[in-house]
Amino acid sequence: MDEQTTPEPAVTGPDAAYREGALDLLGLLAYGALTAFDRLAEDARMAPGLADKVQLATMAGRQVDHFGRIRDRLAESGVDVMAAMQPFHEPFNGYHEHTRPKDWLEGLVKAYVGDGIAVDFYREVAAFVDADTRALVHEVLADGGHGDFVVGRVRGAIEDDPKVGGRLALWGRRLVGEALSQAQRVAADRDALTSLLTGTVDRPGLDLAAVSRMFSRLIENHTRRMATLGLQS
Amino acid sequence: MDEQTTPEPAVTGPDAAYREGALDLLGLLAYGALTAFDRLAEDARMAPGLADKVQLATMAGRQVDHFGRIRDRLAESGVDVMAAMQPFHEPFNGYHEHTRPKDWLEGLVKAYVGDGIAVDFYREVAAFVDADTRALVHEVLADGGHGDFVVGRVRGAIEDDPKVGGRLALWGRRLVGEALSQAQRVAADRDALTSLLTGTVDRPGLDLAAVSRMFSRLIENHTRRMATLGLQS
Repeated sequence: MDEQTTPEPAVTGPDAAYREGALDLLGLLAYGALTAFDRLAEDARMAPGLADKVQLATMAGRQVDHFGRIRDRLAESGVDVMAAMQPFHEPFNGYHEHTRPKDWLEGLVKAYVGDGIAVDFYREVAAFVDADTRALVHEVLADGGHGDFVVGRVRGAIEDDPKVGGRLALWGRRLVGEALSQAQRVAADRDALTSLLTGTVDRPGLDLAAVSRMFSRLIENHTRRMATLGLQS
Repeated sequence: MDEQTTPEPAVTGPDAAYREGALDLLGLLAYGALTAFDRLAEDARMAPGLADKVQLATMAGRQVDHFGRIRDRLAESGVDVMAAMQPFHEPFNGYHEHTRPKDWLEGLVKAYVGDGIAVDFYREVAAFVDADTRALVHEVLADGGHGDFVVGRVRGAIEDDPKVGGRLALWGRRLVGEALSQAQRVAADRDALTSLLTGTVDRPGLDLAAVSRMFSRLIENHTRRMATLGLQS
């Protein structure tokens, strides 16, 4: 059983641990959406032209919509989104502080590669929550076609100047390193979230082999995304 | 008749002038929404706490929705939003460059007082366009309850430190001065927009007395907003 406090510990026993894990997932997503908004809005300011700015602004606006959806869902369960997000301030702020894009292209790669690995991870966790929460998570994580925009811009920039590819490949590796290091931190701090994946005494989860396969999937998808951008991972 | 070029001069004669004026209004609103997004997202970064940041992020997200609605409407008329916004880059950029909030409170007052006078003006112009365009304008300009948030924050800050009121009152006056000076510029440059208000040979509009009454309404509303914030205008 998990002993850490929840924002609203309405029930105890296995259900409480499960509920806490699901709330953690939503809190994670909500704070992720807020920080993504912030970053995309800042990146929009580096856009080389107004059409590019509009794209980034639209992506930022979608994050606010996502935040609102998750806040409303949490409110239905009697949970304040502010409380649910609180445990995730440090890892997200840490990630963003350590991966400030220096220019427009670094911002695009971060939106694609960094968010990509986060989204994959959320989807893996969502497999273990109830159908309603899972549907919300999948809806919030749908790409909305902006990936194509990023891919076009990054590939175009590498075509114009192949040296850019080397720099952005390094950047992509750094993004993944930071993301995994912060994910580690979340996993260590949030037993309820981790036990959604690994199971508890009362509820079976993934065994060690399955966890390792999950990480393989995350890395494979990352490699595929880097290749799509024309970058070596 | 108005001689300036339109993004899509599909018809000529009085209808063309009218159409151009309506397109100008939508282009103005679209670029206004984009720059408002930008500014609100930047102001969100100055928020003293996460709840305040969420409020500003939500306001910024709404601007992106508005932009999308206007872009779609323009597209239905075969007009590219980028072309429609082009004439308004300079006045909006000028306004924002000259009125950069130095802190969180200045940002809030700008969102309330500066946007307030702009919204009033758009509504005045919207009285002269077709019902569909007018409905879109009114929908996009609906406040969404964020005004109450700003009023609460600003009044609270003045209660905590009455000196703040003096500083923000000066700031409010500067905002209006800059807004009017940029509006003047738009009026001088965009005959079609101006003639929506003043009419043409073929279509009656406001006479000079009516234009002057309109300005009185704008100033009265501004004074009322300043008073609502607890500021002398």
